[in-house]
Amino acid sequence: MTARGLFIVLEGPEGSGKSTLAKPLADRMRQHGVEPVVVREPGGTRAGEIARQALLDPEHPVSTMAEVFLYLAARAELVATVIAPALRAGRVVLSDRFTLSTEAYQGAGRGVSTDVLGPANRAAAAGLRPDLILILDLPPDVGRARQVAAGKRLDRLDAESAEFHRRVIDYYLAVQGDGVRHLDGCLAPDRLLQAAWDEVVAAAPDRFAGGRVKEGNP
Amino acid sequence: MTARGLFIVLEGPEGSGKSTLAKPLADRMRQHGVEPVVVREPGGTRAGEIARQALLDPEHPVSTMAEVFLYLAARAELVATVIAPALRAGRVVLSDRFTLSTEAYQGAGRGVSTDVLGPANRAAAAGLRPDLILILDLPPDVGRARQVAAGKRLDRLDAESAEFHRRVIDYYLAVQGDGVRHLDGCLAPDRLLQAAWDEVVAAAPDRFAGGRVKEGNP
Repeated sequence: MTARGLFIVLEGPEGSGKSTLAKPLADRMRQHGVEPVVVREPGGTRAGEIARQALLDPEHPVSTMAEVFLYLAARAELVATVIAPALRAGRVVLSDRFTLSTEAYQGAGRGVSTDVLGPANRAAAAGLRPDLILILDLPPDVGRARQVAAGKRLDRLDAESAEFHRRVIDYYLAVQGDGVRHLDGCLAPDRLLQAAWDEVVAAAPDRFAGGRVKEGNP
Repeated sequence: MTARGLFIVLEGPEGSGKSTLAKPLADRMRQHGVEPVVVREPGGTRAGEIARQALLDPEHPVSTMAEVFLYLAARAELVATVIAPALRAGRVVLSDRFTLSTEAYQGAGRGVSTDVLGPANRAAAAGLRPDLILILDLPPDVGRARQVAAGKRLDRLDAESAEFHRRVIDYYLAVQGDGVRHLDGCLAPDRLLQAAWDEVVAAAPDRFAGGRVKEGNP
């Protein structure tokens, strides 16, 4: 649980538009006088970027359990050095991926046991739970089609089988829980932004002044 | 459990002489016609060396849980790509550190819960258990004194408090279990080598021809 800050996580399968959403969502917060701490996984710290380098190299794929632990190492470092201090200071943190990604990709996708992932995931997150998790849902074949259309260079995860992606997408579609909200990843960008913003305001109405844009800084 | 190979691990606190022992112990095996696969943690794979780079940089210490997961990532990759295939092929594997190091340093030393370390450690090891674990025991103050005398550059772990080292040393002193043998790390190198060799031969008398040096190759 966050003591004072607000912890918002964007989740979803590859190509669901998380990263595309993160920037205008952060801009909308700024228009309301809130400067968010924006992070992405894996990365955002020295150790996290080193882990990212090992993880996303298509020439040298790592083994499944090494992948699990490299993602967890990146998360643990990001939590300890960026996210937890920011929340303690009352900031809004917007993270592109968090623990659900491990459950979806390494759990549902690769079949790593919940007995292993559960305690490790909680330890990496230092017990932090997001106040709001926005899941961008996609029907199975849309994500990859978008990436191909965008000419995106395929990294390791992109290159995995369609079956793997289907398991990830199905996992995300089924997630329920405190703070979890599902958004339609097939919405046009401006409509997706508005849907996400409505959820952010609903999660923290006081902080975002009822959703109205403030004049000047607070 | 190893199906066909022989898995030997050297363990012990900093400065106990593990690394100094590994080379002549491997040489002794070669004299008996056995070419061991010699590895060390963290390292021995591309991902493991990347993890090592993040772990052992005294300028940029990582958080406790990131440390845990980086060591586990290095181990998982080493097991998946080197140790398990070598054992399946019937080879002798000699590893400088394995799962006990995580229990001693991150568990006893840093206080990370067994609930987290246990399942994660087993997953990183892919269920492999060493046939023989040689623990080089030291009284608490000998290890650091040796390192200082050797003018060794202090890395992150070396620089930790004396209390931390005492907890690690005490943990190693107390370990019991299948295949665990304690050796006196204060022995002179040639006597330590002989004591280690006696344990290796006892663990696999057929493989090492009763401890006698073979003429030529097998």
